[in-house]
Amino acid sequence: METDAGDTTAPATLSPRPPCARISCHKSSNICSRSYFMVVMVFFHIYIINVIALLLYVHYNDGHGGAGPSRDSHRLPAQPEFLRDISLPRIEGIRVGHVQKVSLVTDKVHEMRTLSLKPLLFEIPDFLSEEECRVVMQLAQLKGLMESQLMVQEGQEELVEELNLSPEDIFNLLDINQDGQLQLHEILTHSRVRDGIWLTPENLREIYAGLKADKDGNGLLSLEEFRLLSSDAFQRFLLQQGVKRSQLVRNSRHTWLYQGKGAHRVLQDIKKRVTRLTRLPPALVDLSEPLQVVLYEQGGHYHAHHDSGPVYPETACTHTRLAANTSTPFETSCRYITVLFYLNSVEGGGETAFPVADNRTYDEVSLIQNDVDLLDTRKNCDKSNLRVKPTKGTAVFWYNYLSDGKGWVGEQDEYSLHGGCMVTHGMKWVANKWINIDPDYQRQARYQQLVSQQPEDDDDDDEGLKMSTDPYNSDTHQDL
Amino acid sequence: METDAGDTTAPATLSPRPPCARISCHKSSNICSRSYFMVVMVFFHIYIINVIALLLYVHYNDGHGGAGPSRDSHRLPAQPEFLRDISLPRIEGIRVGHVQKVSLVTDKVHEMRTLSLKPLLFEIPDFLSEEECRVVMQLAQLKGLMESQLMVQEGQEELVEELNLSPEDIFNLLDINQDGQLQLHEILTHSRVRDGIWLTPENLREIYAGLKADKDGNGLLSLEEFRLLSSDAFQRFLLQQGVKRSQLVRNSRHTWLYQGKGAHRVLQDIKKRVTRLTRLPPALVDLSEPLQVVLYEQGGHYHAHHDSGPVYPETACTHTRLAANTSTPFETSCRYITVLFYLNSVEGGGETAFPVADNRTYDEVSLIQNDVDLLDTRKNCDKSNLRVKPTKGTAVFWYNYLSDGKGWVGEQDEYSLHGGCMVTHGMKWVANKWINIDPDYQRQARYQQLVSQQPEDDDDDDEGLKMSTDPYNSDTHQDL
Repeated sequence: METDAGDTTAPATLSPRPPCARISCHKSSNICSRSYFMVVMVFFHIYIINVIALLLYVHYNDGHGGAGPSRDSHRLPAQPEFLRDISLPRIEGIRVGHVQKVSLVTDKVHEMRTLSLKPLLFEIPDFLSEEECRVVMQLAQLKGLMESQLMVQEGQEELVEELNLSPEDIFNLLDINQDGQLQLHEILTHSRVRDGIWLTPENLREIYAGLKADKDGNGLLSLEEFRLLSSDAFQRFLLQQGVKRSQLVRNSRHTWLYQGKGAHRVLQDIKKRVTRLTRLPPALVDLSEPLQVVLYEQGGHYHAHHDSGPVYPETACTHTRLAANTSTPFETSCRYITVLFYLNSVEGGGETAFPVADNRTYDEVSLIQNDVDLLDTRKNCDKSNLRVKPTKGTAVFWYNYLSDGKGWVGEQDEYSLHGGCMVTHGMKWVANKWINIDPDYQRQARYQQLVSQQPEDDDDDDEGLKMSTDPYNSDTHQDL
Repeated sequence: METDAGDTTAPATLSPRPPCARISCHKSSNICSRSYFMVVMVFFHIYIINVIALLLYVHYNDGHGGAGPSRDSHRLPAQPEFLRDISLPRIEGIRVGHVQKVSLVTDKVHEMRTLSLKPLLFEIPDFLSEEECRVVMQLAQLKGLMESQLMVQEGQEELVEELNLSPEDIFNLLDINQDGQLQLHEILTHSRVRDGIWLTPENLREIYAGLKADKDGNGLLSLEEFRLLSSDAFQRFLLQQGVKRSQLVRNSRHTWLYQGKGAHRVLQDIKKRVTRLTRLPPALVDLSEPLQVVLYEQGGHYHAHHDSGPVYPETACTHTRLAANTSTPFETSCRYITVLFYLNSVEGGGETAFPVADNRTYDEVSLIQNDVDLLDTRKNCDKSNLRVKPTKGTAVFWYNYLSDGKGWVGEQDEYSLHGGCMVTHGMKWVANKWINIDPDYQRQARYQQLVSQQPEDDDDDDEGLKMSTDPYNSDTHQDL
């Protein structure tokens, strides 16, 4: 990994000291005193250069700031460039099964096992104590859990109208292999989720039968057959039939617990421990979403999904959107890291499945083959490459993004696809801590700058970046 | 990646400067002057601590060194512990297909593409110029190429006698699935290579027929059938039949070109470029094997193999063996990195195949399935996960070892398995540069210390570690 050589970070060049000091000193004190003098001189010069550079930098910034409030009002439209002065650490996986010791609390050393490299995924047993698990579950119950369903009315339809696509255009988009017929898996690959309802090959056959869509009964839709369907025919049919909770993308309840100042000690402790675990600047963890506590009852599940979307230039991150002051057509959660805590040991089922972990290739289309949908965590968890058994107190965490190779967030890691398998016996309590970072450094910096301009409060755990105020107030936080 | 925090490397904490200097300065010059003062003070204190620590360290080492020559003579048996003061850089792959720009020569920027993550494998087009390729091939021809065959007489047999294994013991070792029968692939998995001869399932069937070994003709060897064979029956049969070059593990000729002082300018340039490419301390590259130039004629091949063996406590590295001053029963080449240069564009075949690159799992036994031996580069290159086409001037390089997570060499990377596919048209010229590092840091340090005690010569390209003398003299170098 390259160290991020900032403009004035000359001290980085000091770290690999000339080995002379260590090795050849055994040999001759002559060389030693000369090399020692050299090292001191190098230290001294680099130090002086450093101080001068810093002075110049501060002076330069002050010079710009001289205009006062009038400049302030112009700053946002001007959107100054921020120089990147941090390099995000990324924990090494080495190989699947590798165990490294980590120091997260004062009286204990934790073991962290690499579960996969794609995504970069680790497991840490006993991350939370029994007591901490109990407290989190109780706090969530006190606050009250809401249904996690993702019912979105008419979203799909509007998009289609907006893009002004003809049925022929849609047919061509869906027809992946361009054979002039729509196979079941071609429909499902693009529209597995309709208004929060999860379509299976069986559902789709029922819909065909109910709507008499497949006139020739060959299990395929021709363009003629497709043309006769209205764009919302599937949804309307499903809603008429009545939708069961097990047919949803996600069958659970959840709530959000604020972890900032004044929050329960256990919640603040967990946040601090996550900061140590991820080795990220505390401000980044502070500025992230609150802790999400999720309860899956018997029969509960969450089909496989990404916690974050891919980020293109025209995509904004939810957390930096306001600060970025841009109007982008798309928005996604930018969750660099997911930390998932198991708050109880589940009696049956409820594993966290990573269908394509460490696969050689990722191909969205081949996630459904021969009517087996790898994303379906009610049916096909056993076919996932990796499953993590929920054990009380264990934490798993993974990166939803790759590195950009320069110390910042890069592309989305498609292999981070994961889901919650159906709970077959008992209940399943988990908590999620997401760490939000915008892959666009400028937007993240602008956002942090904006937050830091809010009235100052006494920062008790402010170790890295300056800002530590939490924009996700428990009252104003939007459900994600 | 963790930076290697040595005992006095306090400057590392300076790199992520408090963002105050950058961000909040826009806001108020009040805070600024205070924070600026703070930063300068922190700098100053860390600097002072640093200098004191360095002084103490050097003083401490000098104190030990005071005994003079008498201490020197006792050093080797005592084998002092070396403190590790370097962290080996490892280039990030990010994801397959990722391209990063690298600066290797003054007038050009090279593009380096990630070909796989397991092993960590890169391709750099135009690493060598046409002229350089020509010079290397001509130098190799001037020096003369030798057959690369690996015929080792009676090695296997001796080991068996030494271990004093009964036919029953050997049968049980070979019988992987413990069904009391030896399938073809069970024999091949353990003894694909006998005296440098490569066994295929077809060969084995011919041997069974020739020796009338498989009495009941079911294609399997029972314990009774196995007991009737002498331990060298297969080899003797093969040698009687006459062995063709195509039946060898490796069908090529090669030579070694010294790259140290006085060597051809092109060879020295290549060494320097490899040092820049790998970002390793120059001394490590200097102390590695010379450049190996290999010629595969039409029909030539090299079945899939590892360039380095796994390193257990009882295994010594070839390059540090003498210096380590230990008597270990096993020895292996410790080649941290392989850099492979294509010196011509091959007309047909000759790809470098990585049969299991980026496989989810590595399982030696499943390398042969249904009579398809993935290691066989004469037959099954098309079934390899990855094949690199030989293009003049292109270099590929990969790591044969994982990181240990602490900045040094870790376990062997089994996924680095690779071979040269059969050349179907024309000739194939390649060169190999191996970078030798002992996964045991103490042994590597002892070796470098020993080499550095040889009479000093003027080091012209001595940038990193001190030692740059080359123990692989072109005259004394043993063929590997």
